Amino acid sequence: MNFESEESYQNWAKQQSDLPQGFSVGTTHFAFRPRERAQEAQMRLTLISLTKPTSSFAAMFTQNRFPGAPVLVGRKRLEEESLQAIVVNNKISNVGVASGVSDSEAVCSAVAEHLGCLPSQVLPSSTGIIGWQLPVSEIQENIHSLVKNLQSESVFPAAAGIMTTDLYPKVRSKAVRSGRIVGIAKGAGMIEPNLATMLVYLLTDIAIARQDLRRELALAVQESFNCISVDSDQSTSDTVAAISSNEISGIDIAAFRSGLTEVCRSLAQDVVRNGEGVHHVFEVRIQGAPDFEFGRQLGKTVLRSPLLKTALCGNDPNVGRILMALGNYRDSASREIDFSKVVIRLGGTVIFEKGSFSLSADKEKLLSTYLKEAELYASFPPKEPGSVFHPPGRFPAHQRNVVLEVALSLGSEDVSVWGGDLTHEYISENADYRS
Amino acid sequence: MNFESEESYQNWAKQQSDLPQGFSVGTTHFAFRPRERAQEAQMRLTLISLTKPTSSFAAMFTQNRFPGAPVLVGRKRLEEESLQAIVVNNKISNVGVASGVSDSEAVCSAVAEHLGCLPSQVLPSSTGIIGWQLPVSEIQENIHSLVKNLQSESVFPAAAGIMTTDLYPKVRSKAVRSGRIVGIAKGAGMIEPNLATMLVYLLTDIAIARQDLRRELALAVQESFNCISVDSDQSTSDTVAAISSNEISGIDIAAFRSGLTEVCRSLAQDVVRNGEGVHHVFEVRIQGAPDFEFGRQLGKTVLRSPLLKTALCGNDPNVGRILMALGNYRDSASREIDFSKVVIRLGGTVIFEKGSFSLSADKEKLLSTYLKEAELYASFPPKEPGSVFHPPGRFPAHQRNVVLEVALSLGSEDVSVWGGDLTHEYISENADYRS
Repeated sequence: MNFESEESYQNWAKQQSDLPQGFSVGTTHFAFRPRERAQEAQMRLTLISLTKPTSSFAAMFTQNRFPGAPVLVGRKRLEEESLQAIVVNNKISNVGVASGVSDSEAVCSAVAEHLGCLPSQVLPSSTGIIGWQLPVSEIQENIHSLVKNLQSESVFPAAAGIMTTDLYPKVRSKAVRSGRIVGIAKGAGMIEPNLATMLVYLLTDIAIARQDLRRELALAVQESFNCISVDSDQSTSDTVAAISSNEISGIDIAAFRSGLTEVCRSLAQDVVRNGEGVHHVFEVRIQGAPDFEFGRQLGKTVLRSPLLKTALCGNDPNVGRILMALGNYRDSASREIDFSKVVIRLGGTVIFEKGSFSLSADKEKLLSTYLKEAELYASFPPKEPGSVFHPPGRFPAHQRNVVLEVALSLGSEDVSVWGGDLTHEYISENADYRS
Repeated sequence: MNFESEESYQNWAKQQSDLPQGFSVGTTHFAFRPRERAQEAQMRLTLISLTKPTSSFAAMFTQNRFPGAPVLVGRKRLEEESLQAIVVNNKISNVGVASGVSDSEAVCSAVAEHLGCLPSQVLPSSTGIIGWQLPVSEIQENIHSLVKNLQSESVFPAAAGIMTTDLYPKVRSKAVRSGRIVGIAKGAGMIEPNLATMLVYLLTDIAIARQDLRRELALAVQESFNCISVDSDQSTSDTVAAISSNEISGIDIAAFRSGLTEVCRSLAQDVVRNGEGVHHVFEVRIQGAPDFEFGRQLGKTVLRSPLLKTALCGNDPNVGRILMALGNYRDSASREIDFSKVVIRLGGTVIFEKGSFSLSADKEKLLSTYLKEAELYASFPPKEPGSVFHPPGRFPAHQRNVVLEVALSLGSEDVSVWGGDLTHEYISENADYRS
């Protein structure tokens, strides 16, 4: 898909956005004064609500050792009998604050009161600045208007509502028999799942038992969100949640698994593509790994290399840096790569085999062109003297990836991982934005 | 030390540069045509030579699984009885080339012939582009003039000769009783020792047995070069070599150890300070770690965080990102940090304790000023439309670090690690320079 404008991208996203049966979403926003800074700020609330509580819900959270309060609350919610709503606020992540858990619970109580359910049936999520306290009273005052804004047609307002530094809303969906799976995601900087500040909500009307949904979510996450890296920082607040209204019975588990995996893999790539300062989406396909985890960790080692990421930014098919990055991988079981057997292809063209580089001036030109065609945008020299770089548009120009294949001949496991390059826009975004 | 100009820095460096007894150094340079690219290139050769062969030599090499040919040759040299010379070329790192080892050996043979020693008494090093072949004949043709340029007063020409993307030559020395330890280092991008493309040569006239020198080098490297990170990429070519001419007898081992460690720790910080696009040298002091390796890995986890590195670049005392980075540490023995006991200080000011942030508007202002005063330079908006950023000068403005202390109360081991921030100059350097 190519997109010419923000409007054409949004139209495409809205076409993915029909809600499954039994769901409604709404958002609202308000101004408030944080305790921690003099300036006024804006906060947006997003609500996903079900017509009735469901026991079919699943969630997976960050492995960062300093998790946010909503993650602590979320882990408790997993043990509850049922869920009826998810409430998300942006701007403040509610991490590292002494009153964090009770503040989250207070927000859930306000939502529960307006929806007529129990606070324990509300899952809270927060995303934004670490160390600041949630403005609980202000949030509570705005729940009324949040609930008033609920509608059951489109998930798109929620996809837009949960954004922080995202360039554009991210929605993917799949029809599975007579049901639907719809997913929304936010995430830009601070992205490296195991998981990362990414918030992902997967909604379906396909009836599925709780234990089955939890298993399916884990499988889909393993091959999608756990296989991406933008700036290799694990966030404090990652959440991937899945919830079914159980309206459509007669599940075909294989079709469900395939549909959920497809939605998750597409959303995961969207998160990378939308990453702070990403000019190229880099897909590393490890082929012939001894097992999945080896392939995943090796792929991520390549994806994380700042020297490789900057070469990609410069449309430079820098084979040396690829080899250097592969050479950095340390397997936990000390299995070694035999470089004499490794074959590396970039865009399908062999660049390394039989232990040495396979290069020529013509090949370099071909590969530079390949990289340039996969570029989402090039850096715009900043006009103002502050040297601040901004992405040129709030939509993806296309959905093409740069594909690097690394064939190891160490086994039969194939694993794909996705990441982005390292650019001036990333520096500008993160040396200035307070988060 | 503050430096106002390239000249004042070079004068200071030259004052460190007196060679120990029994050594001479020289450099030469020439133009050549690489096979891999049409344009002509420049190569510089550097030679460190001893008056007579010595058995007291030590070397430590990269742990990258795709090491350069000189590293393979160097590992063999460690088993030889004696060494008499070190020959270094820049421009081409001799990595990933089928004829690499025999090309290195051919260079050693040419040097040996001119010096009247054995090829096995010559240690080769190469630094530069990965994947290109050494221009062996051209190098051999220039050994004559290299040897002619040998002088026994100053190591400074060698410190300058081994540079590639370095901003300035790096020399540190220490008088120990009537002997000297002098060290030179190169390294800018692709820096993360265990070790990193860094070449370090430590020369001394203090008589020391080979086994003792090898032990002392390992200890000094552990607390210096193994504790730095610039862009978290392990190079293919790291080398730290130490060699004694054994001219001055009566070693005081404790004084030697202290002197060598001091030279290594200073050089290691110089390497960071000179790192590609480094605006701040960031020193993380982990206090009260259960053991050295825990402290080192935790410190490095903090140093590697791109979000923290960009905050530092922006003079932003971003406590949230510090906590997020600490939360990312995964101990191999699964020991956990108790955040309720952690105390964090930035520039001596407490910013986190008792499980929460300790912030105020005044404190933030104080800390921003502290960061600004430790800044080596700020980004210059580029004049030309290509958005290329360059450091403004080829000398360090000062030698101040940003100091972050993290007190864990998990043991009694204190470990310091050093790294740099992430800036526009790093992007420009690496999206353009072919290495």
